[in-house]
Amino acid sequence: MKMEYPVLLLDRQKALSNLEKINAKLQNTEVDFRPHFKTHQSKEVGKWFRNKNVIKIAVSSLRMAEYFASEDWSDITVAFPCNILEIDRINELASKIQLNLLVESKEVAQFLAKRLRASVGVFVKIDTGYQRTGIIGDDLGKIDELIAVFDETELLNFRGFLSHFGHTYKVQGLAAVKQIFEEGNTQLSMLKSRYEKQYPNLEISIGDTPTCSVLNDFGVATEIRPGNFIFYDLMQYQIGSCTKEEIAVALACPVVAKHEKRQEIIVYGGGVHLSKDRVIHPETNEPYYGLAYPLSEEGWDLKAAPSIVKSLSQEHGIIKAKPSFFEDTKIGDLIAILPIHSCMTANLMKSYQMLNGERITMMPVD
Amino acid sequence: MKMEYPVLLLDRQKALSNLEKINAKLQNTEVDFRPHFKTHQSKEVGKWFRNKNVIKIAVSSLRMAEYFASEDWSDITVAFPCNILEIDRINELASKIQLNLLVESKEVAQFLAKRLRASVGVFVKIDTGYQRTGIIGDDLGKIDELIAVFDETELLNFRGFLSHFGHTYKVQGLAAVKQIFEEGNTQLSMLKSRYEKQYPNLEISIGDTPTCSVLNDFGVATEIRPGNFIFYDLMQYQIGSCTKEEIAVALACPVVAKHEKRQEIIVYGGGVHLSKDRVIHPETNEPYYGLAYPLSEEGWDLKAAPSIVKSLSQEHGIIKAKPSFFEDTKIGDLIAILPIHSCMTANLMKSYQMLNGERITMMPVD
Repeated sequence: MKMEYPVLLLDRQKALSNLEKINAKLQNTEVDFRPHFKTHQSKEVGKWFRNKNVIKIAVSSLRMAEYFASEDWSDITVAFPCNILEIDRINELASKIQLNLLVESKEVAQFLAKRLRASVGVFVKIDTGYQRTGIIGDDLGKIDELIAVFDETELLNFRGFLSHFGHTYKVQGLAAVKQIFEEGNTQLSMLKSRYEKQYPNLEISIGDTPTCSVLNDFGVATEIRPGNFIFYDLMQYQIGSCTKEEIAVALACPVVAKHEKRQEIIVYGGGVHLSKDRVIHPETNEPYYGLAYPLSEEGWDLKAAPSIVKSLSQEHGIIKAKPSFFEDTKIGDLIAILPIHSCMTANLMKSYQMLNGERITMMPVD
Repeated sequence: MKMEYPVLLLDRQKALSNLEKINAKLQNTEVDFRPHFKTHQSKEVGKWFRNKNVIKIAVSSLRMAEYFASEDWSDITVAFPCNILEIDRINELASKIQLNLLVESKEVAQFLAKRLRASVGVFVKIDTGYQRTGIIGDDLGKIDELIAVFDETELLNFRGFLSHFGHTYKVQGLAAVKQIFEEGNTQLSMLKSRYEKQYPNLEISIGDTPTCSVLNDFGVATEIRPGNFIFYDLMQYQIGSCTKEEIAVALACPVVAKHEKRQEIIVYGGGVHLSKDRVIHPETNEPYYGLAYPLSEEGWDLKAAPSIVKSLSQEHGIIKAKPSFFEDTKIGDLIAILPIHSCMTANLMKSYQMLNGERITMMPVD
């Protein structure tokens, strides 16, 4: 592997195996799979899903929906509150594919009722406790108000309720993830009971990676939308969603300096590559930015003791090296860093290199 | 200003005024100006410097040096420890322009001695206390060893010492910045005394934005390399390097939801736009990710009370809104967010929009 500067390595086998595991869970269930493509943002990786008969996807922006639509994805949910400033492009895209939007306010519903020129599916975004955005699950007045607008509008097809249990990202372990899931599931069950007579095809869409990784029964959900699971990362490892062996991406970084007294290695690889996302390390109780491992032709070597990436500036990474790692690593070597948050790292890197040297592209910059 | 999704606004007048202030400081001194272009990464912004007779620049990667060399910048320092894996491209670029590299280890010096095919300038990177990278200022043995390699090698032209007082980013106020500068200046003065007889044209290059903003006398420095000052940001505001009025970039964000009970506004604008860089807010003692202001045709309105960006996910920003801001802001409005770290925000956004609507580009993605 000839690499001169930081490159995001993608272990295809690991990613395919992560995909296979989620797929296997959904066999013999009625739950649909609508993977979130914001993690990889790549038409090539998208093909791996298509090969597994995935036909519905979620994305996080209209531009991402346009990119995947141009790759023949024809059933796309923009899993972000509808941005009415993009109405012209919504109309354009909705005339070509099955486009689904998230609505959580009467203003937006009424705006769409007036300005839509093509049919879209709409989900009501429900906040089951994450407190980012969405209508609180028991605010039935607001929900009724929205659905009334949908019912009056031929181009707005009410599909059901969508929620993101993002507070699972802040906990650790099966029991804690399960508790968040149960609370959300209870709220969504009540909504289902209330509305399913009138809307017999009502959908319930959930989909954070921790829930989808550690649980096997998704309650009232009719579809799941995990994204991160295809690559995983150290944040998911700390939550308990994955093993380190399942993490499918790592940043290859040239070693540019060594500081023996501090036992620190300086790499070319900083916040513009990994992002500044961080988690608290369970042993040091300090924030950290990744874990460094030796790199060989076969990939990163998880049998070695991990060294902590203790800080990042724009292009520099500082690694607090384990003694043997410090000894064995020379200036001009490449080492591998497992990222804290693979979605953010992939978004910065804009392309991948597979272990066989093949490069694959991502959504181009606008 | 028609904007449908997050756009990085650049107030040209503010940027030009920031440039003018640093330029004015250097009038009637012997100190050269070698601005760091990693902040803006834009050939268009580069022209504003050229119009002020700037001819030397610093960059943070070889690819950035190649980009600016293609725009006729012909004296470029890559202010990052030399990455020997890029030797072929170093040779290619060094054959065309005056390329200057940073060296801090004998391994790298010896590698360059063997593999260089064109002449480069070399600076010894000195660590005066930041503890990121560089040779400790009093480690004369190591410095002598390096210079001996340079002296033996025709293509390695020893230029002097270079340091980045990056620990100024962690303090606040003139006195604290000055203390860090004085400590660094003392070390660099000693190096100058020791080596200037043998190397009468010895250069001393320093250049963090806090030092260059709050001080007027740069001691033994023969050149300064600030970068961030052209835009500034909230991190620099908290250090005391700038006023809020001097911050020249802001992210324009569509409002997509409002939550009255929490008095929170949700915008389309997240970690993939602003970066996850954060600082502790002096009043709340909590980390925050930006400050939100109303936006009009004239730019962002700093007379309004600022609202704190309390958290960011991939595409969402959550703003804890002041009551009047909450009242006055509607779904579908655009608001402005001053970034914590403008270098990271610019690097993510990849283009700017000026207040007159004109778009300017940045270095393309590889």
